[in-house]
Amino acid sequence: MTGTRERIVTATNELFRRQGYNGTSLKDITGAADATTGSVYHFWPGGKDDLTVEVLMTSGAAYGELFEAVLDEDDDIGRAVAAFFDAGADVLETTDFIDPCPIGTVAREVASTHDGLRAAAHAVFDGWVDVGAARFERAGLPPERARELAAVVIAAVEGGFVLARTTRDTAAFRAIGRQLHVLIDATLAATERIGR
Amino acid sequence: MTGTRERIVTATNELFRRQGYNGTSLKDITGAADATTGSVYHFWPGGKDDLTVEVLMTSGAAYGELFEAVLDEDDDIGRAVAAFFDAGADVLETTDFIDPCPIGTVAREVASTHDGLRAAAHAVFDGWVDVGAARFERAGLPPERARELAAVVIAAVEGGFVLARTTRDTAAFRAIGRQLHVLIDATLAATERIGR
Repeated sequence: MTGTRERIVTATNELFRRQGYNGTSLKDITGAADATTGSVYHFWPGGKDDLTVEVLMTSGAAYGELFEAVLDEDDDIGRAVAAFFDAGADVLETTDFIDPCPIGTVAREVASTHDGLRAAAHAVFDGWVDVGAARFERAGLPPERARELAAVVIAAVEGGFVLARTTRDTAAFRAIGRQLHVLIDATLAATERIGR
Repeated sequence: MTGTRERIVTATNELFRRQGYNGTSLKDITGAADATTGSVYHFWPGGKDDLTVEVLMTSGAAYGELFEAVLDEDDDIGRAVAAFFDAGADVLETTDFIDPCPIGTVAREVASTHDGLRAAAHAVFDGWVDVGAARFERAGLPPERARELAAVVIAAVEGGFVLARTTRDTAAFRAIGRQLHVLIDATLAATERIGR
């Protein structure tokens, strides 16, 4: 049986994906997790914001590992990025377009109002950019360019989720993956030409 | 003197940029607009959600016109897109990183919970994609490819705002604009090669 702490983290993550940070009350969380308010404060003395940091960090780490795994599945990094978008599109379709990534929604809600949560989201995004940058470097790009390209991929994923969820359609999301494939190939080809 | 209706729309827009839809109460709105709750219901009988639709549509139209104006300023569409990102970065820096676009935040918060607001955000994003697609077509791309590339630009803007606001830094945001410039040039060059 799942422990109370884990149930609370999972329920909070799911609620954030459907209704965001400000739309989720502590009562929503305890109801969905079948837990008491006292248990939330037992595990997270700072309450909802402490819990939110843990949700952002744990789901951020899980997504970082997934991103890494998908990129490592194909030696062609452009094709791997396109596959990552196709996988995201499949998730959107099979989950009735709830947000695959609670971090992006929460980040935009709290960036100007809760600095601790902003910093947690920053750490998560930085970790993802690190993952992408390492793969682009391995594919032959200089470090700065590799980091820029990784930021483009992460931004396009996050922005793509907004488009897909509002249109309730993944066509544009899949197309973004294909377009990034074109960009990555063009950038790698230009780097090779300079390197020769 | 500004009318009550306009004051309410402006105040709501500003509040959404700082704290999102669910983080903004009707009381916050009437306080910031120096208006009564009765006046909100006078102009928007459906209350907060009716008002929110108007905020999304009016700020969406304003951004659409801005996007159009920036793209029309330069015959080199890739350079124009990069300039649009630089302009966005300047706004982020001069406004202490509040959200330049309330629509993206609100869209992610409400996409699974308020279908009328989701549809309004959808209409706004579609309008922006139309603007970009028309310019990419004029630059020589076939309609389908033009639309895909426009969706990439809009997604990268929206996702770029998340990265910039959480890192409180515009370096990655400006870099995204430069990378899209590379993508656009590569796509136009490939289309020309096929066309010959």
